[in-house]
Amino acid sequence: MHNQMPCVDPGRLESDHVPLAESIRRLIDVSIRTEAGAAEVAAAKARIDSAADELSRALRPGPFGVHRMPDGQTIACGNAVVGVRNPVAPPLVIHHDPDGLVWSEFVLGVAYEGPPGKVHGGVCALVLDHVLGAVAHQPDRPAFTGTLTLRYRRPTPLERPLRAEARIERTEGVKIFAVGHLAAEDGLTVEAEGVFILPRQYRG
Amino acid sequence: MHNQMPCVDPGRLESDHVPLAESIRRLIDVSIRTEAGAAEVAAAKARIDSAADELSRALRPGPFGVHRMPDGQTIACGNAVVGVRNPVAPPLVIHHDPDGLVWSEFVLGVAYEGPPGKVHGGVCALVLDHVLGAVAHQPDRPAFTGTLTLRYRRPTPLERPLRAEARIERTEGVKIFAVGHLAAEDGLTVEAEGVFILPRQYRG
Repeated sequence: MHNQMPCVDPGRLESDHVPLAESIRRLIDVSIRTEAGAAEVAAAKARIDSAADELSRALRPGPFGVHRMPDGQTIACGNAVVGVRNPVAPPLVIHHDPDGLVWSEFVLGVAYEGPPGKVHGGVCALVLDHVLGAVAHQPDRPAFTGTLTLRYRRPTPLERPLRAEARIERTEGVKIFAVGHLAAEDGLTVEAEGVFILPRQYRG
Repeated sequence: MHNQMPCVDPGRLESDHVPLAESIRRLIDVSIRTEAGAAEVAAAKARIDSAADELSRALRPGPFGVHRMPDGQTIACGNAVVGVRNPVAPPLVIHHDPDGLVWSEFVLGVAYEGPPGKVHGGVCALVLDHVLGAVAHQPDRPAFTGTLTLRYRRPTPLERPLRAEARIERTEGVKIFAVGHLAAEDGLTVEAEGVFILPRQYRG
């Protein structure tokens, strides 16, 4: 299933939480790359535990879900790919061109490593699943992922500009066929095809 | 390409960094779920920035890569799926049974959300790419991912026990065909097939 199904729980403005997530993304990056000794690591860990304790005093019991903002827009702040308050998300910003092309440009840092110096092949799949899903999904009409096929052409570099794009190839009844790819500066690295299914209640 | 290609850069013991990554995973979780107000969020952010500054005093310039431990074992500590010092990784522990089955049991928390309350379909792909790759990969003989096909049968629940498994279906020349799936307590959620290719220098 795709990820931006609307929800009527009114969302709080995210202005405080976006900088918090940015700080945690930087923390994730340096925690992987640090060569600090045991004492410095222990001191940093104590500060992190203290911050987590502070944030834990009032917690929603479950996942973030999708919230509807006062302007009616739905936001998936906790989403693993686009969630602005989810430090695990790069986060991708998804653009929808008038001709139907969906694209995103981004850099994946060391937290997304698979083979040494390269983006994990599964992270490429994660990004492409989302971008192809964003093609199939329309506001207030979610689409379920049926199948996703990835063809790995070349390794995808870490810490370099990347672009993912997707478009609808065709529709057949309740099935939407989407195609897309991930590319680095010197060309395409992974191709993707997805078949998305309209849920029963949205069929014409 | 799969992710555990050996590297002769001698790794440091990870005993300090594993608890640090665990603390950051908890911080990620509560930062998504917190309902703290602006003052508490700002205070937590200041502690996090201070911890990141502390860890940044000595940084390796690039990604973590793969390190060979004193006992000869290779470890991919920064890996996005299994890296014990990568807070983005759940991290999965991969088991290899004598009969060739590869499996992992784990829970995916709110940081892996896609549809409300469900694991992001792309995170399912990330996990299955890794587990199928772990079947194709042998020590000191990496395998490149050629294609990966995922069939989404049902949504995968967040915060519930999950199991991923994979095995080699057959080999044809330089191609290894692997199959696997992801399952929740009440049954299979995603099926996967992967074709992995032996790099030229490892062909018989």
